[in-house]
Amino acid sequence: MTDVALTHGSALLEIVQRGIRVLDLGRPYQQGMPQSPNHPAYTHTLPRRHGDMVRSDGGSAANDLISFGTHVGTHIDALAHVSQDGKLYGGHSAADEQVGGRFMRGGIHEVPPMVCRGVLLDIPRLHGWAACPPAYEITVTDLEAAAAAQKIAIGAGDVVLIRSGWAQRWDDREAYIGAATGVPGISEAGALWLASQKIRAVGADTIAFEYLAEGAGHSRLPAHRVLLVENGINIIETMNLEQLSEENYGEFTFVVSPLNLVGATGSPVRPLALVEA
Amino acid sequence: MTDVALTHGSALLEIVQRGIRVLDLGRPYQQGMPQSPNHPAYTHTLPRRHGDMVRSDGGSAANDLISFGTHVGTHIDALAHVSQDGKLYGGHSAADEQVGGRFMRGGIHEVPPMVCRGVLLDIPRLHGWAACPPAYEITVTDLEAAAAAQKIAIGAGDVVLIRSGWAQRWDDREAYIGAATGVPGISEAGALWLASQKIRAVGADTIAFEYLAEGAGHSRLPAHRVLLVENGINIIETMNLEQLSEENYGEFTFVVSPLNLVGATGSPVRPLALVEA
Amino acid sequence: MTDVALTHGSALLEIVQRGIRVLDLGRPYQQGMPQSPNHPAYTHTLPRRHGDMVRSDGGSAANDLISFGTHVGTHIDALAHVSQDGKLYGGHSAADEQVGGRFMRGGIHEVPPMVCRGVLLDIPRLHGWAACPPAYEITVTDLEAAAAAQKIAIGAGDVVLIRSGWAQRWDDREAYIGAATGVPGISEAGALWLASQKIRAVGADTIAFEYLAEGAGHSRLPAHRVLLVENGINIIETMNLEQLSEENYGEFTFVVSPLNLVGATGSPVRPLALVEA
Amino acid sequence: MTDVALTHGSALLEIVQRGIRVLDLGRPYQQGMPQSPNHPAYTHTLPRRHGDMVRSDGGSAANDLISFGTHVGTHIDALAHVSQDGKLYGGHSAADEQVGGRFMRGGIHEVPPMVCRGVLLDIPRLHGWAACPPAYEITVTDLEAAAAAQKIAIGAGDVVLIRSGWAQRWDDREAYIGAATGVPGISEAGALWLASQKIRAVGADTIAFEYLAEGAGHSRLPAHRVLLVENGINIIETMNLEQLSEENYGEFTFVVSPLNLVGATGSPVRPLALVEA
Repeated sequence: MTDVALTHGSALLEIVQRGIRVLDLGRPYQQGMPQSPNHPAYTHTLPRRHGDMVRSDGGSAANDLISFGTHVGTHIDALAHVSQDGKLYGGHSAADEQVGGRFMRGGIHEVPPMVCRGVLLDIPRLHGWAACPPAYEITVTDLEAAAAAQKIAIGAGDVVLIRSGWAQRWDDREAYIGAATGVPGISEAGALWLASQKIRAVGADTIAFEYLAEGAGHSRLPAHRVLLVENGINIIETMNLEQLSEENYGEFTFVVSPLNLVGATGSPVRPLALVEA
Repeated sequence: MTDVALTHGSALLEIVQRGIRVLDLGRPYQQGMPQSPNHPAYTHTLPRRHGDMVRSDGGSAANDLISFGTHVGTHIDALAHVSQDGKLYGGHSAADEQVGGRFMRGGIHEVPPMVCRGVLLDIPRLHGWAACPPAYEITVTDLEAAAAAQKIAIGAGDVVLIRSGWAQRWDDREAYIGAATGVPGISEAGALWLASQKIRAVGADTIAFEYLAEGAGHSRLPAHRVLLVENGINIIETMNLEQLSEENYGEFTFVVSPLNLVGATGSPVRPLALVEA
Repeated sequence: MTDVALTHGSALLEIVQRGIRVLDLGRPYQQGMPQSPNHPAYTHTLPRRHGDMVRSDGGSAANDLISFGTHVGTHIDALAHVSQDGKLYGGHSAADEQVGGRFMRGGIHEVPPMVCRGVLLDIPRLHGWAACPPAYEITVTDLEAAAAAQKIAIGAGDVVLIRSGWAQRWDDREAYIGAATGVPGISEAGALWLASQKIRAVGADTIAFEYLAEGAGHSRLPAHRVLLVENGINIIETMNLEQLSEENYGEFTFVVSPLNLVGATGSPVRPLALVEA
Repeated sequence: MTDVALTHGSALLEIVQRGIRVLDLGRPYQQGMPQSPNHPAYTHTLPRRHGDMVRSDGGSAANDLISFGTHVGTHIDALAHVSQDGKLYGGHSAADEQVGGRFMRGGIHEVPPMVCRGVLLDIPRLHGWAACPPAYEITVTDLEAAAAAQKIAIGAGDVVLIRSGWAQRWDDREAYIGAATGVPGISEAGALWLASQKIRAVGADTIAFEYLAEGAGHSRLPAHRVLLVENGINIIETMNLEQLSEENYGEFTFVVSPLNLVGATGSPVRPLALVEA
């Protein structure tokens, strides 16, 4: 088998090598970062530091311990994350599926890496705002109008990212969490509209993805129900969509590669938008 | 600003939509998975299960706590991971850089996501083996011969993945860790050869990337020194390169998006090879 | 209220000050210590080291992060730790009591610190052995004979510690875990006998307290059922009773102060035997 | 050796059995409890719940994972916790002692369990206050006057507990942490006075033990230096001394049994005061 030449080249690779730009749609992880209080905080320590152990040849190493909830920072929700009346996507019993402490059905290990068409629906741009106000419900009219203004048609299998501009509050932890003010996003109607387009996944630049009323916290999350439980559409949260908007990208190659955490209800991710240089 | 049409389309997106295949080069995470004993073990639990809290509308959720070392499973090493005689890449003092418990210089947050040309040097294929034997040093001759046999020239900025076939042992934890048997891989010479090609990063299908002698453990890691400390070339470990080999891909679009863990010495990753369908 | 003299002295304090000896019945915690594989491993790191932050006056500090299962090392089981046919002590539904992820009923926070009479039933001493053999069932006859030989009557409210001598294997991790060999201890009959004495708690020098057959693991734990579920008697495991035996103490003042972990199924402890000097 | 009767009885045990009261001087552990932000937060989850695994005989179990800093909740500081100008107690280099990530010299494993005379210096009682005001420095005059008012002489080897009354703020997390208001406690002078009495350990009902000026945080901790670094006297923090005060106990048998965490800078504890019924 030594002579078999391996496959070479491709139009894809040619374009990549000609020059593409990679836009980072994720957030950095640091202790104290904004996150939902419902999830274990992100912690990072160095169990081993240089000098703790020095090899005979003078080499040494440092390493890390990280500990956090999978719904902290930029992350993707698995279908098993949410249940409605005790049922998961596909009608399976949530109580049964979680026996043993992991979801073999509906866990994030069932979500393969995605490389597909990504679409940005830029709601502030539509309205001429810097950002949507707190507790602003992004309506079906908003979504349709944004698509129309951007001359974009959403196709089956696409990943649709909805920009509210909320990412601008990232450096003010409590403001970004938005418990008191409420947070902009779609609600049930917007979720139904998106689901009807047979998309692969959705994403937004807020912690909870959907509209949160002032002071209401996460008491009702109808978009999660419609998307995860009823339609099997994954949700990506805490994205940073500002650069996509600033640079006018409404359509791009979207890449997300969830960690293959068997049985988990989500995974941290660092999604990318690939555009030509 | 409501009228500005966002940028549409691109040759890249056309090819993606025409159809590409996404090959997963990473490993799943599960408690008990093979890993170096030098790093905190991967643990996963469900702090919250469906039913712990039920919303007024009948919705509920489950979430996760994950805790592990960044050098567990498929991962990428930051430059600050290794020191030589107390110095990091760039000549900086390791003792100084680690003050405060994180590496603002040389941490993984300094490694941007990569989308570039990937090259597979398939060593077992070269020799007509199923896999390299334990404690087999992959020499410069092996690397050059593999590239020649595959009619591939390594270019600056490429990511070079070296297959030993060791991934076939994944289901036998102690065998994959290979403490007793030693593990195949390049050593100092191979690392120098790779560094001279000005590549961006390297990867392999073993835990420690480089050659480990029988029973020697991690007592000497010269390739880590050459690559990380002397040449600023990141190392990706515990990859699964079997499918790339089986399907004859010697060249592909390589994608890796490390989590942006500020100050960490590494990050879990799920690298991808993109090829045309 | 400035003049009220606070209470002084006591016969108890006089004896303490005259001189008592404090025997440590617990085990040290270190990474890699013997423990049941069913529980999260003990890990310890220094998130902060001296020098990470230095105060203006030249002071600095180091601190720790510890992470482990509550049933690791010397520990006490809460009543909620074990269920039988879905029921906890008192007939409560285990499924109901664990909603929310902690046991407000039956958790270790319900176990107050104990200072009471402690009795050692020294089984190897009874038989003239260094230690009980593996997979040796300590019978009711053994317990009665040990008490008789030690001229001890067990009283209501006592804490009864059963020595098998298994503690001598502590330095051999797999031997102490005893999965292959089985482990000595009482079984159902011994538990029923102890329960009939209306004691407060029991303890032993093995991980699982009760008799484990060769290769059987923790597949059946009848003594746990009898003690925790049926009789509300707490179990202390992984004790070190060798010094008590060597120094001939069959009766002593027993002290154990569980951490007040609200809703937990157990707590690490460092029990003491107080004897006169 | 079967005939050797084990030692029986003792005056100590007689008093214990006649009836003593055990006062709990510790605090419960729950997620969200007040703690210094400088330390890893207390987290508790149930990795295993009843029903995850059911034995053939119908038995099942739940267990815990706890993760926290050793200086969270009621805890005792080891001598290695604090350094001054790079030195630990005994003049040892902090940088050297922490190599390897644990303190074999000065770690909490070197602090044996204590059963000795305990003395309460009740400062609010002295002044006729409910509690000391925030940022109140408890002076040597206060300490001497409290001892005099209570007709107590501190003896060598005693454990001295200083009540400020700050424990009354426990249910208001930010108030108890006291960052904005400052916190009452002794400072350098008080520490020197205590050290001159050759006591074994000190304790208080605040997080940081010593006086904190308004808004100053932990920027200067001279009492820690005097006690830990210069005199080898351990410090116990976050105690609850209210019951001792309410019930007029100025002197008692004090018990504290730190977990034997090898190399750690501290340990959670649940200290006790034993008094006669």
